[in-house]
This record gives sequence, C-alpha cells and structure tokens, in this order.
Amino acid sequence: MSEQVSEVVTRAQSALESWWGAAPEDRAKVLESIANALDAHAEELAALANEETFLGEPRLVGEVARTTFQLRMFARGLRDGDILDSQIDPAVAGPPPAGHPTLRRTAVPIGVVAVFGASNFPFAFGVLGGDTASALAAGCAVIVKIHPAHPRLSHRLVDLAREALAGSQAPADLVTSVEGIQEGADLVVAPGVSAVGFTGSKSVGRLLFDLASTRPDPIAFYGELSSVNPVVVTPQAARERPDEIAQGFVDSLTLGAGQFCTKPALLLAPRSAAIGDKARRLAAGMPGMTLLTEDITSRFTSAIERLSVDERVKVSSSGRAPEGGVAATIIETEIADFLAPDSAVREECFGPSAVVLPYDEIHDALRVLAADEGILVGCVHGEEGEDAALVFLRTLARRAGRVVWNGWPTGLAVSAVQMHGGPWPASTASVHTSVGLQAVYRFARPVAFQDVPEGMDIGV
Amino acid sequence: MSEQVSEVVTRAQSALESWWGAAPEDRAKVLESIANALDAHAEELAALANEETFLGEPRLVGEVARTTFQLRMFARGLRDGDILDSQIDPAVAGPPPAGHPTLRRTAVPIGVVAVFGASNFPFAFGVLGGDTASALAAGCAVIVKIHPAHPRLSHRLVDLAREALAGSQAPADLVTSVEGIQEGADLVVAPGVSAVGFTGSKSVGRLLFDLASTRPDPIAFYGELSSVNPVVVTPQAARERPDEIAQGFVDSLTLGAGQFCTKPALLLAPRSAAIGDKARRLAAGMPGMTLLTEDITSRFTSAIERLSVDERVKVSSSGRAPEGGVAATIIETEIADFLAPDSAVREECFGPSAVVLPYDEIHDALRVLAADEGILVGCVHGEEGEDAALVFLRTLARRAGRVVWNGWPTGLAVSAVQMHGGPWPASTASVHTSVGLQAVYRFARPVAFQDVPEGMDIGV
Repeated sequence: MSEQVSEVVTRAQSALESWWGAAPEDRAKVLESIANALDAHAEELAALANEETFLGEPRLVGEVARTTFQLRMFARGLRDGDILDSQIDPAVAGPPPAGHPTLRRTAVPIGVVAVFGASNFPFAFGVLGGDTASALAAGCAVIVKIHPAHPRLSHRLVDLAREALAGSQAPADLVTSVEGIQEGADLVVAPGVSAVGFTGSKSVGRLLFDLASTRPDPIAFYGELSSVNPVVVTPQAARERPDEIAQGFVDSLTLGAGQFCTKPALLLAPRSAAIGDKARRLAAGMPGMTLLTEDITSRFTSAIERLSVDERVKVSSSGRAPEGGVAATIIETEIADFLAPDSAVREECFGPSAVVLPYDEIHDALRVLAADEGILVGCVHGEEGEDAALVFLRTLARRAGRVVWNGWPTGLAVSAVQMHGGPWPASTASVHTSVGLQAVYRFARPVAFQDVPEGMDIGV
Repeated sequence: MSEQVSEVVTRAQSALESWWGAAPEDRAKVLESIANALDAHAEELAALANEETFLGEPRLVGEVARTTFQLRMFARGLRDGDILDSQIDPAVAGPPPAGHPTLRRTAVPIGVVAVFGASNFPFAFGVLGGDTASALAAGCAVIVKIHPAHPRLSHRLVDLAREALAGSQAPADLVTSVEGIQEGADLVVAPGVSAVGFTGSKSVGRLLFDLASTRPDPIAFYGELSSVNPVVVTPQAARERPDEIAQGFVDSLTLGAGQFCTKPALLLAPRSAAIGDKARRLAAGMPGMTLLTEDITSRFTSAIERLSVDERVKVSSSGRAPEGGVAATIIETEIADFLAPDSAVREECFGPSAVVLPYDEIHDALRVLAADEGILVGCVHGEEGEDAALVFLRTLARRAGRVVWNGWPTGLAVSAVQMHGGPWPASTASVHTSVGLQAVYRFARPVAFQDVPEGMDIGV
C-alpha cells in the first residue's frame, strides 16, 4: 500500500466521519454546488477536455450539461424523498409472526467509495459523473482514480469539487484522488474502502473486480466492462425503411468516433434489405476520426487489420482514413461464421466499426440474439403487430439492461427510471444501474432501527 | 460438473423459460399455494424436523408459521405493487439532457437461483425460507441444496413445493434440488445459474463466494456468514434494571440453544452492575441443551475447553451439562484481553455461550463496539436522554444491519421494511437484505424499455 493511497483513504474516512448523518437537504446542496461550479466553468472545462480527448468542444460542452443535470437530478431526488427515504413499519401487537416491534429502515452511506471513471465520457462517467454523484447522494466520501487519458481535466474537476464542497460547509475531503496504476490497485484493496465504481475495459475491470473479491473482507464492485450491443431489423422494417435504418445505424456507430459503451456493434437484418451495402457506402463517405488515445487507435487499427485477412469476413476499410485518423468501418460476415467458436468478430471493438450480419430466417437471427453474454442495450427496428418484433424484444429482454424500440442505443437518457447495466460483462452487478436515480442504492446501506424512539437523534 | 447437477440446472432453466413473464398475480398464487401446503402439513413437518434437529416441536411449529407468513408477505407485496412495480418516465420533448424518450423500468428474474439454507432454521431460512420465497417472488427458478443436517425434511419440503407448483399451474421444476458437497460447489459454478443465496458458516460461505466470484462470468452471491452481535448497557440502565437485563440476556443467548445468527454474543456493561455474576448464576440454572448436530456439539465444547485454559478468561462451565447435552456458558474477560491480537474470544461460537465484558469508561466500551467487522445486529439498553445511549446507537449504526433499543437481538421480525444483513462477514452484500420485502431485489434484474409501445406484449 503506497503512502499516497493510505494517506488519502485516511482523509476520506475522516471526512466521512464528520459528514455522517448529513441531512438529505445538505447532501442535495453539495451536489448542486458542484453542478454550479461545473456550469460556471463549462467552456474552460470543455476546452481542456478537448485537448486531452479530441472529442470536440460542442459535444464536450453538452456533456458538461448532462453531468450537471445528473448531479441536480440526485439533489432533487433527495429533496423530494424519491430516494433514500426512511420507511416505517409501526409496531403490531401480538405474538410473532404477525406481531412485531416498530421498525424504521434508513439508509446510511456504505463508506468510502473508489471511483474509476471512463476515458470516453470524461464528464458524465468521469471524476464527477454518475458514480460520484450517486455516492455523494448516498452520503459517502469518494476517492477518484485520476484517468491517464485526461489527467489535467481530472485534477481540475477534483479541485472544482473540493472548492464547491468547502463553499457549502461540507468537508473538502469528501472528494479526493489518487493517481497511478499501482495506486488504483492499492485503492481497491485498502482497508478503509467499502465499494468501487468502475467504468472501463473488461481486462482492467476484471483485474480490479478480482482484487475487490479476494480481499479478506470482499467489497462491492460495481463495474461496467463490455457490451457488444445488437440491433435487429424485422422483415417489415427492412422492406419499408432500409435507407433510414442504414443511415441511423452509421450515425449511431460513428457517434463519438464509436467510443461509446452503447455503440451498436452488431446489426442483424434480412439479407434482401442489403443494409450492409448501404452502410458500407455511408461509412465510406464519413471523414476520418481521431480516437481518444494512441493506444485505442492502434488497438482499433490492429483489430481491423486482423479481420481483413480473415476470408470469412468482408471489411470496408483498412481502419485508417486516407486523410489521417481512423475510418468508419463496416464488417460483414455470415451468422454461421460469427457464431463459430474461433470467430474473431464477437469481441467488443472500441472505435467506429460495427458488424453487419444478414439473416435468412428469424431463427437464425435469434441464435445470435440469444448468445449468452450480457449486454447493456439491444434495439429492435420493426412494426407493431409483427410477430418477429415481439420475439426479438422478448429475446433481448433476457440479456440486456435496456431494450429500445425503433431507436438507436447511443444517446442514453439521464432519467429517473433509467437502467444502465446488464448481466456480466455488461455489468458486474446486474441488479444495479449506474445511471438514473436508482444508482444511489449501490452506495446506501440500509439499517433497521428497532424500537428506537423518534425523539432520539442518532444521527442517521 | 456432475450429471446430477447439469441435469437439474437444465430442468430449472426450462421451467424458468416457460414461467418467464408470469404476472405478479400468478407468482403470488404460487407463493400462497406453497404456504398452504406447509400449513396443511405443519405438525408432520415439525415432527420430522424435530427428529433431525432437536429444536423442539413447539418452536418448529412456530417456525412453519413464520415461514408461511413470509411466503404470504411476498404474495401480498406482489399484489399490492409494493415490490417490483414498473416505473414509467413519460417522454419529455426537447434536446437532452432534459428531453428524453419514454422509459419503462420493469424487473425481470435474474435467472436460476441456487439456495443454500441454514441448519438452524430448517424452515424460515431453509428450503422454502426467505431466499426461496424472494427468488420465486422475483419470478426465478430455485435449485436448493439439500442440507446434510436435515436431509429428510429438505426432501419433503421440496416435494411439497413441487406439488403445490403443479397444483397452481406453474412448472414443478421452479423448485428442484441437488444433494452432496461437491454437487453444491458444482451448482455455484454451473453456467446456467445466475445467483446464489446462502446462509451458513463463514468457512463454507467464503469457499462458495470465491467460486461464484472466480467464474468466467461472476454471479451475485448473497451470503449471510457470521456475526458476533454485541449488546451494550448504559450506566443508567445498569443501575436501574441489572437483574432484568441479565435475565433477558441469558434468555436470548440460550434461545434455540444459542444457535441463532442473531444470538447476543457479547454483553458490555458497567463493571459495577456485576451483570457477569448474575448471568453466570442464571446460566447455571439452565437445563442441558441438545445442539443441531454432533459436529456443532463438538465444535462448541472444544471452543469452551480451549477458553478454559486461557487464564485471561473466566468460563462458567465446561460446556457440557451434567445431565447430558451442552451447558449455557458465560465467558468473562477484560476489554483489553478481548481486543488483544491473539484473543480467542472474538470469533462467533455457535451454541449457548456469550462473552461478558465489564467496562469502566464509555470510551472503553466504544473501542469494542467500533471494531471493524460487520454485524447483523447490535443492541443498546439505556434510558432516553442519556448521552451514552446516543453514542452507542450511533456507533452501532456504522457496523450493523439492525440496531435495537432496549430489546434483544433474537426474534427477528418478518416485516416489510426489515433489514437482515450488514457489512462483511454479516453479509456478502451489505446493501441487500435477506429478510423483508426488499429481499426480492437481490433476484430481480431491472430492464428499461425505451419507446416500446404499451400495446406490445413483450412478456415481462
């Protein structure tokens, strides 16, 4: 355990100790003061983020707005009692099981929470993104791991949050940070840390999950790791609007240069619709894109190169755009080849590429949709009343955290009842969400107070 | 993977497949039909359970009632929409983040659930106890591991549940079973199993938790493993009702022969109250007790023997009752010895023993209460308005799932808002409970349906 980490954990613990029992109103004010600080510095932050991520200032300004909207959503949820409200079962006289004492169920903070943000959403899933917002809403202290893809932005966000905390009479150490790969690992095994929020790759996520689970006292690990999100087109939709679907698909898969966890990675459509041809032409017309880091760029181009030499696969570009950057790339293959045990096209590929699979029969498409792995989101394009539409929706509901009708998976709404997660590896905890008001329940530990008089101020 | 296990998992999966999307009303009927079957056979079941557990027929008849009350509580929760109700965010026009599509959040079953019941509550935490009831409420299929301490009862309960399921037009294979140590381990790593509910020892629980967490696709493991539950007496309560407290303590620690996870394992009281003396006298007057199994008996008597030779510890009996069976045993030691790194009195001891620690200063008592490990329940005996009472309650709220005022930890109420769990090792998932209506959320996976027309019957 590095000194940096144990010192930070101690500070976070003592901040939590003094903040313990803060009223919902006080926690709401903290969230709002952080939101206000971000809004006041939106342009500066977007410019800084753009220097480190190349995601474009307009999108980044929008992402700041999404992030502050999210912080305020939790503040509102706390104020309105939509989240973390106490519940009371008044005493019932008589012998058990019907008779029982008075029970009041109240949530307390789970403890100090370590947050590992994402490279691709430096604000909304970053230092002050959904994990931090929901942990603060639950009354926890947060230690963020500075992301190596945008360290200057991460530090700036931490500083702004600390100023906002101090300005609203809360301990600044409710938000602290550590930096470095080993320090991140140390944080997950540190005795004073009680839960982890993680958004990132399957390889790093699995490593950290294993560290959290093999502690002498295992802790909760809420990770979003990987998802190959499918879109399926019914026969009727394919006949009626193939061009619109091809356009929507290419727009969605290239949004943010294809670096979204919600990217449509797979499109299943009737062979006759020739969506692959259309998508290929549209992709060819897209300008080159700059990915987040050189590592991500080389992983993307190597993946496309590997596929190019696979004769069962047709790849629309070399992965590199003639004018520099990477190229939107459509990968076409047959369902049998996709499902083959040695298939190379089933892994998530970060960047502007997606796989198109033509199907001849509904049950062929279903074989792909019913593959075991969990997914964040699946989409169906179809017409109401079509049997195929129903069976596709039903199949996706077994694997996905979100199911979209006649829409695209990107553009995840920040909404009270949103669900962002899914069975492994979409998430490490499929009954929880990382977006929406319910995200707070990952970090709030219920306590039942039995027969404790209401007049006693026990500080929770 | 044994053939027995893979065959059972396949049957459970296909039962779940055909039951998927069952309406809340249908799930409620299933729970009630199982409750009715248990009630109709209560006497027979209690007699059978008594042959295998020696817990006594009156208590066992009461436990059947508690179990059927619990099954019906979930049925009522489903009917009233108190649990698993869908939530809708209607569409909001305009650009994000405020604008968003229609989202409906609905829970689907997490999948096939493996349930490892407890030896000490053959009904309430057994084959058809809280884990099974909440998993069935969530729409899951359950595979129970037959408990080696009461195999005949376990098989009988499985048979009754299967008859009840068939009688209410639900697949009988929603409840199946496996038997054997290796089979239990196989079940936790079986590809078709999605979650585990476990009540038992820390050693077995940790083994199974590790199996669940090291799968290629880790699954949720909800385990209740161990808890050394403290009771603390304030100075004023110690002055005003020392006899009543000593009596309540001994009654609670010997209930069910001290084989409850909620047993008061530790009593902290002002030295002047001499609660140790009183408790020792009361314990000496108790008849010998028969423990659940020979293994448990020999673990208990060996533990007491080991302590008897520790000169820092005063033990009130040899652990064996003169007339046969084990003896209620009071273990007295000093706080400094209790907290010493080589202390032998801090581990949970299954059976009718408990530790009494006299304290001289409040802060000495707090040092014990603030020890790191999570606990299921902590109790404070005190008077309203006493500062010590508040600080004791506040300290316990940081470690416990339940905090009791002027009461005893045993006799856990089955009530809608109950919380039974706590930080490790009390539970492996501290934000969840295994008792009360909220237990269902361990086995219900939320799915957000985006823009799916209400008229489309997608079967969830």
